[in-house]
Amino acid sequence: MITITAYDWVPPIVQGLVRDFRVRWALEEAGLPYRTELINLRNKPADYVAWQPWSQVPAYEEHGLRLFESGAIVLHIASKSLALAPADPAARERMTCWLFAALNSVEPPVQELALLDFQHADKDWAKVRRPMVVEFALRRLRGVADALGDREFLEGDFTAADLMMSSVLRIAQRAGLVEEAGLGDYHARCEARPAFQRALAAQMADFKDSP
Amino acid sequence: MITITAYDWVPPIVQGLVRDFRVRWALEEAGLPYRTELINLRNKPADYVAWQPWSQVPAYEEHGLRLFESGAIVLHIASKSLALAPADPAARERMTCWLFAALNSVEPPVQELALLDFQHADKDWAKVRRPMVVEFALRRLRGVADALGDREFLEGDFTAADLMMSSVLRIAQRAGLVEEAGLGDYHARCEARPAFQRALAAQMADFKDSP
Repeated sequence: MITITAYDWVPPIVQGLVRDFRVRWALEEAGLPYRTELINLRNKPADYVAWQPWSQVPAYEEHGLRLFESGAIVLHIASKSLALAPADPAARERMTCWLFAALNSVEPPVQELALLDFQHADKDWAKVRRPMVVEFALRRLRGVADALGDREFLEGDFTAADLMMSSVLRIAQRAGLVEEAGLGDYHARCEARPAFQRALAAQMADFKDSP
Repeated sequence: MITITAYDWVPPIVQGLVRDFRVRWALEEAGLPYRTELINLRNKPADYVAWQPWSQVPAYEEHGLRLFESGAIVLHIASKSLALAPADPAARERMTCWLFAALNSVEPPVQELALLDFQHADKDWAKVRRPMVVEFALRRLRGVADALGDREFLEGDFTAADLMMSSVLRIAQRAGLVEEAGLGDYHARCEARPAFQRALAAQMADFKDSP
């Protein structure tokens, strides 16, 4: 049996974005059942840091194997299921490139922008910084759009790379950058998947009404 | 034969930090020979974007397989060599968690701080933002230090996870955060490796004297 950790409540603005959502989606695509262990944001178990070095979610357990980092967990699930990875070894390597690209090339500026908009929108320093971050994020997103071209997904059929890239687009979407970069159709295609819908509903269902 | 791309020149402040260095180090640890294809920062080949979506370095080629993203490339090299990964499958999975942690949890604040210090040190907005980034980066670095505890490396012997984490520490070092987080000995232990020294010398040797 697989266990993942998730929060029992987060502020509404980030509900549907917390990263356990990526792992839930991967498990839904792979058809693997799981249970959640809910963590309280303001009262985390003292020993949880041994499982997740910053006491964040998600963390993952499967027959005693404990993992952390959504990228590593999703790649692990993809190694178990052809629903998330191509059978061809070279295509699988290229998929892994795109999964890292989502997390290390695209997400950092997208996440910085989200932080500016969600937490610092009214600050003078953030107003000066914001256009630079938008430009940087758009350059990275347009690189994805150009590489994608007319194809439906990044590497053949839908893979863990699309799951991860579209989960980053989900953060960029609120600032309108996904459409602007020409990734709107691709993003909609990924989020139309039934497994996405189930994962999102499952994250939302685990949130209590208040902290 | 393995080919990697690198720049033929970068500004002195980032020499020794460009990410092809990570791939060179992995190849040196694994004992795999390689050749470099040098890219001019201001005059990149038009078709290079088909290999690397943002026309950056490093990119990697091996018998027609073309990869990008230093994380994906180093993980690929680690899959070929016990010099970079444990033999035990569970330990290998935990190594992969730390490799993603280096790139997706630790590097973003460290890289944001480097950008502030290298490019925007004199700007008013950067002076307001900087203490927040330092605090965030230190929290992440202390999480690494706590997880490491008294051990020499993150997962058994030296692995690709230590390679990647210490390459991120190399960026954080200039702001003094590595010592402050208690990671000085660990960082020195990683950089004392002969393969590190060879990789660094090889990157520096490929730089021309001027742009």
